[in-house]
Amino acid sequence: MERGHRQDVPPSVHFSPGVGGDVCVDGHPLAVIANEHGTPAHVVSAASIRRAYASIRAAIGDRALVAYAMKANGNPAIVGLLAGLGAGADVVSAGELHWALAAGVPADRIVMSGVGKSDAEIRMALDRGIRAIHVESEPELERVAEIARATGQRARIGLRINPDVDPKTHPYIATGLHDTKFGLEIDVARRLLSCIVADPFLDLVTIASHIGSQIPEASSIGEAVAISAAFAREAMAAGANVRAIDAGGGWPIAYGDEDRAAEPHAAFGAAIRGALERAGLAELEVTLEPGRALVGDAGVLLTRVVFVKEQAGKRFVIVDAAMTELVRPALYDAYHAIVPVSARAGAPSACDVVGPVCETGDFFARDRSLPPLARGDLLAIRGTGAYGASMASEYNARPRAIELLVDGNAVRVIRDRGRVEDLHPAPHTRP
Amino acid sequence: MERGHRQDVPPSVHFSPGVGGDVCVDGHPLAVIANEHGTPAHVVSAASIRRAYASIRAAIGDRALVAYAMKANGNPAIVGLLAGLGAGADVVSAGELHWALAAGVPADRIVMSGVGKSDAEIRMALDRGIRAIHVESEPELERVAEIARATGQRARIGLRINPDVDPKTHPYIATGLHDTKFGLEIDVARRLLSCIVADPFLDLVTIASHIGSQIPEASSIGEAVAISAAFAREAMAAGANVRAIDAGGGWPIAYGDEDRAAEPHAAFGAAIRGALERAGLAELEVTLEPGRALVGDAGVLLTRVVFVKEQAGKRFVIVDAAMTELVRPALYDAYHAIVPVSARAGAPSACDVVGPVCETGDFFARDRSLPPLARGDLLAIRGTGAYGASMASEYNARPRAIELLVDGNAVRVIRDRGRVEDLHPAPHTRP
Repeated sequence: MERGHRQDVPPSVHFSPGVGGDVCVDGHPLAVIANEHGTPAHVVSAASIRRAYASIRAAIGDRALVAYAMKANGNPAIVGLLAGLGAGADVVSAGELHWALAAGVPADRIVMSGVGKSDAEIRMALDRGIRAIHVESEPELERVAEIARATGQRARIGLRINPDVDPKTHPYIATGLHDTKFGLEIDVARRLLSCIVADPFLDLVTIASHIGSQIPEASSIGEAVAISAAFAREAMAAGANVRAIDAGGGWPIAYGDEDRAAEPHAAFGAAIRGALERAGLAELEVTLEPGRALVGDAGVLLTRVVFVKEQAGKRFVIVDAAMTELVRPALYDAYHAIVPVSARAGAPSACDVVGPVCETGDFFARDRSLPPLARGDLLAIRGTGAYGASMASEYNARPRAIELLVDGNAVRVIRDRGRVEDLHPAPHTRP
Repeated sequence: MERGHRQDVPPSVHFSPGVGGDVCVDGHPLAVIANEHGTPAHVVSAASIRRAYASIRAAIGDRALVAYAMKANGNPAIVGLLAGLGAGADVVSAGELHWALAAGVPADRIVMSGVGKSDAEIRMALDRGIRAIHVESEPELERVAEIARATGQRARIGLRINPDVDPKTHPYIATGLHDTKFGLEIDVARRLLSCIVADPFLDLVTIASHIGSQIPEASSIGEAVAISAAFAREAMAAGANVRAIDAGGGWPIAYGDEDRAAEPHAAFGAAIRGALERAGLAELEVTLEPGRALVGDAGVLLTRVVFVKEQAGKRFVIVDAAMTELVRPALYDAYHAIVPVSARAGAPSACDVVGPVCETGDFFARDRSLPPLARGDLLAIRGTGAYGASMASEYNARPRAIELLVDGNAVRVIRDRGRVEDLHPAPHTRP
C-alpha cells in the first residue's frame, strides 16, 4: 500500500455518482464525455472553480487581490473564467503575461514573479503597466531600475523576501527556505531599502513571500506574513509607500493521501489577517497567489484501460493516458485518487496504474487498491486541474490531450486534441 | 559535491575549444550560434550522429538492423539523417510511426514497441507493413491476432520477453526486471507459443528484450540475449520461423558522473554476437534499438546566464533554459556536464545552475564546481541530444526552444523557436 494512502478521499461537490452509479462531473456522465470526445481528456468543472474562488474570497475578505497563479493551468478559458469573477493573475513569464491580458485580466491586477526575468519580460511588464514586478534578487533589482530609467517609467515593484519558514511539504515544492533559488534574504532586502527609496524610478509597493505549495498548516503562512509585515514596517519607516502584503499561494487541496484533512480556507485567511492586525497593518491590501487551490480539484484526467496485464503476481492496469498528460507522479511521486467511472462488482485488489510511455516512471499509482477492471473501462484520475495540462509534453510523439470545460449544461472544448501531423512543424526557411 | 562527480568529462570530437578558447560544435563557435539564433537552443552535431552510427554498425556487423529509438529525439531532420545512413526505427506510437515514414525510414525497417498499443496503432502498423510488432502482453497478443484476422493480414510479431536481468542502472530507466510493466515473463511467453504457431494470422519473427538504459556492463546485455536465444530455440522447435533477435538498446554514453568509463561499443557488439554463437544461432539477424547511444552525446543545450545570485553563502547561476527544455535533472536527478562557452579567469567554486521556472526542481546542477560566471555568459549543457527536446514542455508558458543541426558548413534550423501567440491555439468550433 502506498504511504499515507487512505480510501476515503472526500468526493468533491462537482464530482459525484449519477444515475446508475456512473461518475459525473456536474451532472455530465464521464462515460458520455469519453464517447463523444475520446480519451485521454482533461475535464474541468467551471462550477468547482467558481466555488473555490468564492471560498478563498470569503476567507480573505474584500480588501484583497486574488491573483490566479496561471502556471497551474494557463488555458485561456480558465483564466478568462477567473478574470470574469474579479481575479487577477500571477504571471511568471512573457508568455503568461501575454495570455493573461488576452484572457481579459486587467493589467493593474497582474503581478509578475520569477527568478530569471529577461530584459524583454521586464520591459513588457513596464510597458503594459502591470500592478507590480516582484523582484527576487539584487541583480534583478538593478536591471529593473536600469530599464525603468532608460524608458522613463517609474517601476512599481514588490520585494519577494525569503522568510525561511519551513512549509513542511515536498522538497520540490518548498520555495521559502533560504537555500532555494527564490526570494531575497531579509538582510539583503534590508540593505537594498535605502537605494530603492532613493531611486525616482522605483516605487516599492508590495512585500511578498511564498513559502511553497500544499502547506498543511495555516500558521506557517501566518508566520511568513508576520515576517513580511515586520519588514513592510521597516520599508515604510525608510520612506517606501508600501500598499500591499503578498502572502503567496500554497493553500492546500486534498489529493487523498493526507494523514489528516487540511485546514479550511477560513483558517488561512484568518492566519494572514491576524498577522497583519498584530503588526498594526490591517489597512494594507492583501494579495494572494492561489493556483492549485483554485483549479486543482476542479479537474479530472479521463482515461480508458487499454490492457490489464498480470505479471509476477502483480496487476498492471495499462491506460491510454501517460506522464505526457500528468507528470506529477513521475516528478514528485505525487498521489492522485483514481476512481472507476462505472462500478464493477468484485473485491478490490492492488494494482499499478501505468501509461503506455516507454518509461518505468510512467505511472499514475503503485500498489493501489482498485476494484476489478477490464479493457475499455474508464478511470477518472482526480486532482488534475492544476499542473496537469500545464506541464504536458509530447514525449513518445503523443499529441496533446483534449481539454474540456464543463459549465452548466455545456461541455465546451477549450483545447482541441493535438494531431500527429502537427507534432513537428516544418521550420520556416530563412533568407 | 554531487555524487560520482568528476571533472574530466571526455570532450567529444564534435565539441571542442576553437580559436581563442571559445567552445565550438564541429568548428562552429557556440557564441556565434547564440547571437544568431538566440537562447535557449538545442544544438545537435550531424557528424557526431554519423560517427555514433558508424561505431554501432562496426560493433554489430552487417547482418543487423540498427533501429533508431525515435523517442530519444524525434526531430524529422535527425530521423531522416539516420534513415539516410541505413538505420531503421523503433517506434512506440502512431505518432512516431507516422514521422518515421515521413522522414524516409522504409516500413520494413520499422519495429513497434510499447505496452499500451491502441487498436488504431496496431491497425496502422499492419497497414503500413512494418517489420514487426513487438508484443508485450498476452492481451496485446490477442488484440493483434484479432485485428490481423479481421483485416485478413498475417501479422509479423516479435515477443518482448522479460529476461529478469538487473541492468544496474537508475530504477526509472530499468525495464527488464520482472516487476516492471514491460515485456512478457518467459513462462507466459512459453505458454503462448503453441497458439501463436497455430494461428495462420501470426508470424513470430523476432524474440526481443530490452533491459534498460545506460547499461554499464556489456555482459548484462549478453545475459539477456542468451536468454532470448534460448527462447528463440524453443520457439523454432515449436515451429516458429524466427529470423531475428532484438537486443534492445541501453548502450551507454558518458554524461560525466560515471565512476569509470563505460565499455566501448565493440564490447556490447561482441557480447551480443558471442551469446548468439554460443546458442548456435549466429545466422539469426540482430536488431538493435539504440536511441541515446546515437544522439545523446551529439547535442548540447545552449543557454545564457540571466542573473548570478549569491544567497545564504551559495551561488545560484540562473540561466534562460529550464526544465521545459531538459527535464532529466528534475525527473531522474540526472547529471549533465556543463561547460562555459568562453573561458573566464578565476578559481572554480561551487554553484547551483538553475532555470527561471517557478519550481525548486528546475535545476541543471547542484553544488557544481564552475569558474566565475557573469550575466550574459553562455553555458553549454552537454549530453542533451537524447531526451532533451523530445521531453520538452511549455510549462510556465515558455515556447519551445529552437533546434539547430550543425552539418559541415551549415547550421540548419530544424525546429523554429515557438511563439508566445501559438501557445494556446483557439479550439475549432464544432457544429
